[in-house]
Amino acid sequence: MLLDRVEGNVVATRKHPSLLGWRLLICQPINQTGEPEGVPQVAIDAQGAGLHQRVVISSDGSAARNMVGDEKSPIRWMVIGLVDEL
Amino acid sequence: MLLDRVEGNVVATRKHPSLLGWRLLICQPINQTGEPEGVPQVAIDAQGAGLHQRVVISSDGSAARNMVGDEKSPIRWMVIGLVDEL
Amino acid sequence: MLLDRVEGNVVATRKHPSLLGWRLLICQPINQTGEPEGVPQVAIDAQGAGLHQRVVISSDGSAARNMVGDEKSPIRWMVIGLVDEL
Amino acid sequence: MLLDRVEGNVVATRKHPSLLGWRLLICQPINQTGEPEGVPQVAIDAQGAGLHQRVVISSDGSAARNMVGDEKSPIRWMVIGLVDEL
Amino acid sequence: MLLDRVEGNVVATRKHPSLLGWRLLICQPINQTGEPEGVPQVAIDAQGAGLHQRVVISSDGSAARNMVGDEKSPIRWMVIGLVDEL
Repeated sequence: MLLDRVEGNVVATRKHPSLLGWRLLICQPINQTGEPEGVPQVAIDAQGAGLHQRVVISSDGSAARNMVGDEKSPIRWMVIGLVDEL
Repeated sequence: MLLDRVEGNVVATRKHPSLLGWRLLICQPINQTGEPEGVPQVAIDAQGAGLHQRVVISSDGSAARNMVGDEKSPIRWMVIGLVDEL
Repeated sequence: MLLDRVEGNVVATRKHPSLLGWRLLICQPINQTGEPEGVPQVAIDAQGAGLHQRVVISSDGSAARNMVGDEKSPIRWMVIGLVDEL
Repeated sequence: MLLDRVEGNVVATRKHPSLLGWRLLICQPINQTGEPEGVPQVAIDAQGAGLHQRVVISSDGSAARNMVGDEKSPIRWMVIGLVDEL
Repeated sequence: MLLDRVEGNVVATRKHPSLLGWRLLICQPINQTGEPEGVPQVAIDAQGAGLHQRVVISSDGSAARNMVGDEKSPIRWMVIGLVDEL
């Protein structure tokens, strides 16, 4: 799991059907002091994260397939928690 | 999943049989402002991405095997969405 | 598995239900001389690691799902050992 | 999957039995213009890649176990295509 | 799989039970000329690697669980070969 800050979201009309109805957030990994570290990830969000919100994201195929209810989904990263404080 | 820009494609005559008939795109991870970040990936494409198109790619073995219809395929990365806007 | 130093912890009220009751540690990968290397990870901890403790963390979906007792959990990283010496 | 250039090979007498009879190539990830990017990987090769050949490599546990015919093999990365042109 | 040099080992009294009896090596990824590249990994060793030995390591959950004989083990990285020459 990574500590990230939400930097924006992706609008994609043409996409894998299992992505329909899910927000796709651009999540920038950060360290404890909020500095960016490494490559941004794209994650689905079921927690309701806002712009610039700090979040915890995780990458797990089976959990993601469960979340979207599609056993053939290629989704991996998802927001699993909204950070109140560090 | 990563936000990438399509930088080109790979022509490979000799390859694993499950790759036959699939375009292999060179995808450069980018951040929200379009700057390159990290190592390029090679992904198959079922969405019809063009050169310099921004895409979302994902790496999932079971979804890729489903996509190409070969339970022994080593394919992992695929284009799962074409980005309209950020 | 990575050698990390615990840098803090994450407080998240809104989160995936399988995270309830687990401490979420911010773990900074380090090299043998203690210098930071690469992106911090967030890990659950069943070993009782303290702040600045050096730990070994691992990322495995099936082991994490076993640990938290939830077959649909997206948790991946966990503390698997407390380092006495290097 | 990554775009790589073959930089050499590894000779290992003492190794996991599932590696017996397989060439182990040192593969350097490159970008589209051939510059090195990131950490080299070690991959098995069933395609017959030569030194300095550009290749596509992939990391998939189940495909690798199928390839070497050993359900307990720890092999992950393999050459899946020889690049003719970019 | 990565080409690494053994840089030391980790002593951990408190740890996941599946780690009992296994040496935990700190393995630094290197390139073909021996220069360090990227983040060190911690790996179990069944091959008998010595300090400063060059090794090939791999990360595979099912192979690691087989190796240690514990279906719930979180172990991923292991030494799979001792390098004689490059």
